Amino acid sequence: MSVDAVLARIDQDLDKSLERLFELLRIPSISTDPAYRDSCRAAADWLAAELTGLGFDASVRPTDGQPMVVAHYPSRDTANDGRVLFYGHYDVQPVDPLELWNTQPFEPAIVTRDDGSKMIVARGAADDKGQLMTFVEAARAWVAETGGLPVPVTILFEGEEESGSPSLAPFLNAHMDELKADAAFVCDTGMWDRQTPAISTSLRGLVTGELTITAADKDLHSGLFGGAARNPNHVLAKILSDLHDDQGRVQIPGFYDGVPEVPAEVKAAWDALDFSDEEFLGQVGLKKPAGEADRSALEQIWARPTAEVNGMIGGYTGAGFKTVIPAQASAKVSFRLVGSQDPAKIVDAFHAFVRERLPADCSVSFTSHGASPALSIPADSPVLQKGREALRAEWDVEPLMIGMGGSIPIVGAFRDKLGMDTLLMGFGLDDDRIHSPNEKYEKTSFHKGIRSWARMLGLLAN
Amino acid sequence: MSVDAVLARIDQDLDKSLERLFELLRIPSISTDPAYRDSCRAAADWLAAELTGLGFDASVRPTDGQPMVVAHYPSRDTANDGRVLFYGHYDVQPVDPLELWNTQPFEPAIVTRDDGSKMIVARGAADDKGQLMTFVEAARAWVAETGGLPVPVTILFEGEEESGSPSLAPFLNAHMDELKADAAFVCDTGMWDRQTPAISTSLRGLVTGELTITAADKDLHSGLFGGAARNPNHVLAKILSDLHDDQGRVQIPGFYDGVPEVPAEVKAAWDALDFSDEEFLGQVGLKKPAGEADRSALEQIWARPTAEVNGMIGGYTGAGFKTVIPAQASAKVSFRLVGSQDPAKIVDAFHAFVRERLPADCSVSFTSHGASPALSIPADSPVLQKGREALRAEWDVEPLMIGMGGSIPIVGAFRDKLGMDTLLMGFGLDDDRIHSPNEKYEKTSFHKGIRSWARMLGLLAN
Repeated sequence: MSVDAVLARIDQDLDKSLERLFELLRIPSISTDPAYRDSCRAAADWLAAELTGLGFDASVRPTDGQPMVVAHYPSRDTANDGRVLFYGHYDVQPVDPLELWNTQPFEPAIVTRDDGSKMIVARGAADDKGQLMTFVEAARAWVAETGGLPVPVTILFEGEEESGSPSLAPFLNAHMDELKADAAFVCDTGMWDRQTPAISTSLRGLVTGELTITAADKDLHSGLFGGAARNPNHVLAKILSDLHDDQGRVQIPGFYDGVPEVPAEVKAAWDALDFSDEEFLGQVGLKKPAGEADRSALEQIWARPTAEVNGMIGGYTGAGFKTVIPAQASAKVSFRLVGSQDPAKIVDAFHAFVRERLPADCSVSFTSHGASPALSIPADSPVLQKGREALRAEWDVEPLMIGMGGSIPIVGAFRDKLGMDTLLMGFGLDDDRIHSPNEKYEKTSFHKGIRSWARMLGLLAN
Repeated sequence: MSVDAVLARIDQDLDKSLERLFELLRIPSISTDPAYRDSCRAAADWLAAELTGLGFDASVRPTDGQPMVVAHYPSRDTANDGRVLFYGHYDVQPVDPLELWNTQPFEPAIVTRDDGSKMIVARGAADDKGQLMTFVEAARAWVAETGGLPVPVTILFEGEEESGSPSLAPFLNAHMDELKADAAFVCDTGMWDRQTPAISTSLRGLVTGELTITAADKDLHSGLFGGAARNPNHVLAKILSDLHDDQGRVQIPGFYDGVPEVPAEVKAAWDALDFSDEEFLGQVGLKKPAGEADRSALEQIWARPTAEVNGMIGGYTGAGFKTVIPAQASAKVSFRLVGSQDPAKIVDAFHAFVRERLPADCSVSFTSHGASPALSIPADSPVLQKGREALRAEWDVEPLMIGMGGSIPIVGAFRDKLGMDTLLMGFGLDDDRIHSPNEKYEKTSFHKGIRSWARMLGLLAN
């Protein structure tokens, strides 16, 4: 059976594939907000039903958080040789600020540009519902055209990727035998540009946490107490300001332990890429790389660690003005990690850094939202070679091997718990506005993404 | 007619006075939040109706913001000699964080302590509804007992004191002849302690404003852009952190121009007061004065200017974590002023201070929420002498002449627009938790406050 018939069916059924994606996009499965718990469950149910319809042995598995979807084809007790595991996440980021959306985030729309190109606009369109559905639809085409899949496949969809994947490690520990495969695929990454597909061979790690500074035991009136009472907004601002020096270097002692310099040959390859700092930043209204002064933007996002204040709040922030000295102020801080930076050591060093800066009458509390180390994929991995071949065939261009600024905790878990390498192959674009208002996924990404996975499944059988 | 009969009636009718105060406290007249506009109007209507019932020529006057209440007794075209103007404000601060209230903020309650003392708990109980009602109830007792007031009285209640009084200056300009009087009374200040009344003879000024830092034109994903994209949270934290040096001194150039040293004799009088930094700060869970390192807490709050971050917000601040680099971050900043510090110059210097610190790719916008200079009341003012006499008679102790850390814009407006001195006589206590959850007003303050004003009205007729 040639893959051509499968590809033809994909082209023919594209509108139906889009309809199914829209059904999934309409479910507001925001995992970070407890108010959307039922929606997360609904998204899991929807996926399990779809996979069951394709002949998978699929089920929704409860966790302490959002449920997992696990599906095997054929069922796990047979035909394990050459089995691959596909991972995606059905949860999405919150949608605020809602007023910046041009359409409703959970009412997906196809928007056609002046040049005729089309994009799918909705929260989750690119991250990760559109991407995970490329694999599901590729599987559907194989089943429809040939009555089955060319290799045994297990699918794992989680619903907590956007909230630090707290249930993932326990779940993998409890189901190691069931989930173990020859290799894992993750479709949550991007292309180099509209024409050039890419495989991400390195990923930054991520540490996320929250700190709250407390001074007085109640909010105070700044007329009565202003000047004499400690203001936690000032304390927090000073601590956050101290995180970087004026060259953009992180000032936490030991922070750069384990951060490697980019090897000369890799740096040469990156320098050869058609990448412009101005163009990359220009797409979001910026011009000048803001990180370490002596590094390019590409190096800053692929190969350098960061300390980032993702949220801060203290005192009165509503309409008008309130002359309050608040009792508390807090911030959400994340660190992107590279090389062999140790997440646990970073957390400890950060806490010590904060505590050393606490003035009289202040206390601090910390909450962790997860921690994962940086990762890289061996260049000689067999699935990496097949991935390159599938992409080359579909896109008619040599795919690029790139670094990745984001973090995908599952890749570390697959390596540590199941001893698997992971192929990071995805079809997002830099301007997809993931985590932002008006998130979109190119219709081309969806269509050729499905075709790429169909080719990959065919190659794996050889 | 002796004042004794009036005082006796006040004692006798105290429960009814409390009932009327409760009616006013039940109206959620939060002026800073547009959602409560109708409630502000309702509070104004309620007050005008009460004053009409006492024989005042009372009316609610529209402004561009919340309405004013103006009432004359007798009507303004007669008996102007010796007329006094009483000012109060019916608007209240927002109530958040609501979860820290032990009772509902707009369901007033009398709470009895173990020692039998009672307090009135509600938003606005002390600031300023409880205080303004001390004057209304004193007037009521005079009218009930003697058929009229001993001196002509005009009352002005505004509804924007908690939001910078934007309509006040235009209103005074438009009604100068109607509102001009021999002297003004404001009941929005505090006692020295539970036993010792006080008259505030100096007030800090107040400048309030908001700044918003903008970097990218949309929220960004910190995986894709982190390290290369400017984070406005970092920029804002740095600017706010730069406001003070490590000795607590404000670093804005020219900020201390016009700040006088406290005269030796005044400082000696303050030193003689029974004031302990530890006790003052201890009531709110603090220990060490946080302002300029070489000043006492009393000097810090009565005689020194401040720069205070009353609110700040940027990025994701909801439940869980979102790895966002926000497009914007903003802060509400206020300055308390003393001596002859010029509010306009402070605003300009602050804006320049912020602009100088803006890195590449950032812009800033400013919003003003009002500005008023510091003020002091001449020691030889006749109403000041009568106020001391009234307080001495009621409380049986020598009242103290003190400084005040807060700001009451009306006092400056009365001086500048109407050429009047203002007597600042009020019955609040430091632990009244104004602007905070569980705001309260002592029942004793309410009762003896009414009696104090009744005495004052009697003295003014002599």
